[in-house]
Amino acid sequence: MLIVQKYGGTSVGTIERMKAVAGRVVQCRKENNDVVLVVSAMAGETDKLISLAGSISDSPADREMDMLLSSGERVTASLVAMAIDALGCKAMSFSGRQVGIITDTAHTKAKIEMVTAEKVKKALAGGYIPVIAGFQGINRETDDVTTLGRGGSDLTAVAVAAAIKADLCEIYTDVDGVYTADPNIVKNARKLLKISYDEMLELASLGAKVLQARSVEFAKKYEVPVVVRSSFNFEPGTLVIKEDKDMENVVVSGVAHDKNQVKITIQGVPDTPGIAARLFKPIAANGIVVDMIVQNVSTDGKLADISFTVPKTDEKLAISITKEVADSLGSKGVVVNDDIAKISVVGVGMRTHSGVAAKMFQTLWDSNINIMMISTSEIKLSCVIDAKYTELAVRELHKAFELAAC
Amino acid sequence: MLIVQKYGGTSVGTIERMKAVAGRVVQCRKENNDVVLVVSAMAGETDKLISLAGSISDSPADREMDMLLSSGERVTASLVAMAIDALGCKAMSFSGRQVGIITDTAHTKAKIEMVTAEKVKKALAGGYIPVIAGFQGINRETDDVTTLGRGGSDLTAVAVAAAIKADLCEIYTDVDGVYTADPNIVKNARKLLKISYDEMLELASLGAKVLQARSVEFAKKYEVPVVVRSSFNFEPGTLVIKEDKDMENVVVSGVAHDKNQVKITIQGVPDTPGIAARLFKPIAANGIVVDMIVQNVSTDGKLADISFTVPKTDEKLAISITKEVADSLGSKGVVVNDDIAKISVVGVGMRTHSGVAAKMFQTLWDSNINIMMISTSEIKLSCVIDAKYTELAVRELHKAFELAAC
Repeated sequence: MLIVQKYGGTSVGTIERMKAVAGRVVQCRKENNDVVLVVSAMAGETDKLISLAGSISDSPADREMDMLLSSGERVTASLVAMAIDALGCKAMSFSGRQVGIITDTAHTKAKIEMVTAEKVKKALAGGYIPVIAGFQGINRETDDVTTLGRGGSDLTAVAVAAAIKADLCEIYTDVDGVYTADPNIVKNARKLLKISYDEMLELASLGAKVLQARSVEFAKKYEVPVVVRSSFNFEPGTLVIKEDKDMENVVVSGVAHDKNQVKITIQGVPDTPGIAARLFKPIAANGIVVDMIVQNVSTDGKLADISFTVPKTDEKLAISITKEVADSLGSKGVVVNDDIAKISVVGVGMRTHSGVAAKMFQTLWDSNINIMMISTSEIKLSCVIDAKYTELAVRELHKAFELAAC
Repeated sequence: MLIVQKYGGTSVGTIERMKAVAGRVVQCRKENNDVVLVVSAMAGETDKLISLAGSISDSPADREMDMLLSSGERVTASLVAMAIDALGCKAMSFSGRQVGIITDTAHTKAKIEMVTAEKVKKALAGGYIPVIAGFQGINRETDDVTTLGRGGSDLTAVAVAAAIKADLCEIYTDVDGVYTADPNIVKNARKLLKISYDEMLELASLGAKVLQARSVEFAKKYEVPVVVRSSFNFEPGTLVIKEDKDMENVVVSGVAHDKNQVKITIQGVPDTPGIAARLFKPIAANGIVVDMIVQNVSTDGKLADISFTVPKTDEKLAISITKEVADSLGSKGVVVNDDIAKISVVGVGMRTHSGVAAKMFQTLWDSNINIMMISTSEIKLSCVIDAKYTELAVRELHKAFELAAC
């Protein structure tokens, strides 16, 4: 098999960890696989560099941040290559540019436009294990170094796997895989052996931290089978693949929760066309991603309330924009609730099974949990509730949908 | 003026130092100069990376060492660019590759073959201050990152200055300039205001640590005027330029000493042709640079002693090679003396003034210092003596040649 393995910051956080990674890679190679590595910066290194930049400038240029931050992965790539070499296998490190990871010019959050991977193929043919510095690319037009933003090394791994037509892309991290719910909350949560791209996408955007949505989208597009597993043990992990017949039989695959959202309500605006546009246009223009939106017609039938949720990191900016719009609309006011949680159930089986929503609402009602907002997609159902009921809701839903390990 | 400024590791060793450098650069810019920066890694960073590599592998591949070590200068370049930007001047960092520093494939000690500097010229034309990561280049054939070895950032600065036809190349370091002798030994040592390339070359190879010989050779070849000065004050420093008439009037410009050599003597070898070749060929083949060589015919007129000096870092290897050759020649044995010092006087005036050698020998004799070896060039005279007399010899010669500050 041709396997791309990606190791995150904690997996290569120390010299000992790098040696352990090298051992794993060499083992995989001895089992007659061709292996390509993608590595992150050592845990803490990127934060250290960001803090150096912060002590020099309040607003360092994005181009310079990319030049700065891309150095961390280069260090790990060369060190891991040395560690593999020390175990008797030939290895060679490559920067994002050398791998031919061509991106757009959006510094600090660049999009991959193309991956040539010529040197990777050549190194493989020469019997080398290529070790790629993750998280980075190059803009061919300007020849500038770019970085891919949060979860960028996962994206590098998936994109390289697609480019070299790898049989498998293994994402090594500090968790064992994808669970039916957060094991810290639900003791008998079960590790999923496989999950579809779409389910993983929903879980990623719902706060499951194992894979960024961008990487899953990329994997889905190029049908790269991805395994999420731990570099600290030899458990099999969770396989993320194309939806198959088996999956449809499972109504709900998992329960996710997200406490990093804030709910903003603009009260008493005229219930006329164009109001939503006037609110959400400036919010989008500021790069804020709105998750759920609910509009209620007020009792008098003329004035409406609009509630929506945004990530907590964008709270301040979103509130100030909303207040401005609220003033210009002559609304009754803006109410903010940042003590909320979004609880979601996800499963491709929802497409063919009815009654999921009913069961979810009933379960929350049985526990006396009030539902503030509801949003649905083809394969997920989310409810916003009071944050203090998060753990209770997750546990009860996990039980109701019979997700526990046997 | 178009000025290239190079700042070494201690000059950019902390955030505060980087800000100070940015201040200097911006000041220079305000005085209507165009400035290009070359920076080293923060003091200690390169050693830290070398130690990481050492804890992973006893013999890390040179290619990987270069990938690893080149990251340090990239960090400084981007941080210094941010610092300049924060002071209101536009700045842009560049890696060695981006500057077009093309080298051969000799990893960890690559030779510069060409510098295109296209991006540097373009950045200057656009009103930017280019900040170049020193010490590194790229091998165009293999597309691999290379590093230039000790003093590599100085070399980057001189090579870029030559490529963009700069009026001046300023090497900022933690010393004030080039002195008539080590100020730690000779209290009234005088800073030289100017010195010829050839004198600087001799001083560099004789142990003066301000500039590596390679950089001086490059500067001489392209006639780049170089100033060595301190980044910690505003003293004028020492100008290294083409020899001029004034210089000839100065018989001796300085006294240098070098304690980093070891003397090896192979005793009682046949005084026949080819002996020296048989000894020095394997030594050269192992990359050891032999400095001084003296051959004495022994008392019986048939057997000769050959003494030579090599850097202390090559001591073990040189001894083992010499012993092998000594055995094969049936010599009487190999004697090693690593408690020696080389004392030299340097000056372009020596070409036209006689009596320098006589005065040097007399001065050493007056202090009862035995001369073990003598070697001469057109503009320098070196004597190997017992190491314990180093300071005494330097002080007495400094006095004898009247080098003291007035």
